[in-house]
Amino acid sequence: MKLITTLTLGALLAASAVLAAEKPAPAPNGIELPAYYKNWRVIGVSHRQDKESLRVIIGNDTAVNAARAGNTKPWPDGSILGKLAWKDQVHPKWAPATVPGEFVHAEFMIKDSAKYAKTGGWGFARWLGMEQKPYGADQSFVQECLACHDQVKDNDSVFTHPVPLP
Amino acid sequence: MKLITTLTLGALLAASAVLAAEKPAPAPNGIELPAYYKNWRVIGVSHRQDKESLRVIIGNDTAVNAARAGNTKPWPDGSILGKLAWKDQVHPKWAPATVPGEFVHAEFMIKDSAKYAKTGGWGFARWLGMEQKPYGADQSFVQECLACHDQVKDNDSVFTHPVPLP
Ligand code: HEC
Ligand code: HEC
Repeated sequence: MKLITTLTLGALLAASAVLAAEKPAPAPNGIELPAYYKNWRVIGVSHRQDKESLRVIIGNDTAVNAARAGNTKPWPDGSILGKLAWKDQVHPKWAPATVPGEFVHAEFMIKDSAKYAKTGGWGFARWLGMEQKPYGADQSFVQECLACHDQVKDNDSVFTHPVPLP
Repeated sequence: MKLITTLTLGALLAASAVLAAEKPAPAPNGIELPAYYKNWRVIGVSHRQDKESLRVIIGNDTAVNAARAGNTKPWPDGSILGKLAWKDQVHPKWAPATVPGEFVHAEFMIKDSAKYAKTGGWGFARWLGMEQKPYGADQSFVQECLACHDQVKDNDSVFTHPVPLP
């Protein structure tokens, strides 16, 4: 009996591991979560006092190569910019350092000047929290992204200036 | 004459490009700047109010794999942790965002529990600015690093707690 319970528990754990590994649902505009974004390289970093969160801006190879070559006006088609955000937290052993707490969201801008011509050449998408729930009730969520990013239209709708690196 | 001047200028530019591509000098303790660190993945991020700078903490594959597996007490031999720092700057189009300005330094901790037994199992090194000038007049600079990092001895002398990722 004890053995059977252990086996059942094992099976349940295995099943939940499989569920956890499943791909998150696509955004309401059909954009799929980019694969392997957790392996992308750094393009920028920011601390948003208005959102009390720390952000890392990352990119796929096309985007990182463009950033390092200074070839970002416009960013080439195929570039994907990602932003990962965490809630502010005080470092437990170094109070003047703000460090990442809870994971907030991962969001992306995918450059395809033909496909996304109506939205500045970029496809927008966001997934919330550790469970990666797609953001937005329907396609119109993109208007919210655009309303803000349009303020930097003269910089190809991108806020981030790639970091200087030696 | 004009042609010769142009050629000479071209040659000078080419020569300085070669110089710029040369490897920076090693740190006073003999540690060489890790190759390809600019391609490493993200382990953390921080905003140091005491130093008015933004930091990204990155790692080589051994370190990133250990971080993602929760295998950091201690970090395995071969792990290299890097930290890149930039001076705070206000985003020109989004004032409540602090973003990277001037590049400050790149610094590293290399885990080799035998080789660096006297310094908590870590070899420390730092290179300053875009010119990547090694930090420290002599080997004793390491004492400065240790004096601070010893405060987190119970965390294998590492301040950073790897960020949560979905
Ligand atoms: C309230 C303003 C605002 C809204 C709304 C907004 N953004 Fe942004 N976004 C910013 C700012 C400012 C940055 C610069 C980085 C930072 O400090 O967070 C940014 C950066 C980004 C980046 C990194 C590339 C860049 O432009 O710097 C991505 C990707 C991104 N946003 C996606 C989205 C998506 C997707 C949405 C909508 C679901 C969205 N944003 C809505 C203000 C906004
Ligand atoms: C005044 C205190 C202090 C001194 C001195 C210091 N550090 Fe650190 N170091 C920190 C703190 C705090 C962090 C956590 C990240 C952050 O917020 O900057 C850190 C992080 C790091 C990291 C990333 C891994 C980790 O522990 O989080 C490296 C690599 C590093 N330091 C290298 C060095 C080197 C090399 C030296 C000496 C040349 C040095 N540090 C001296 C306080 C210090």
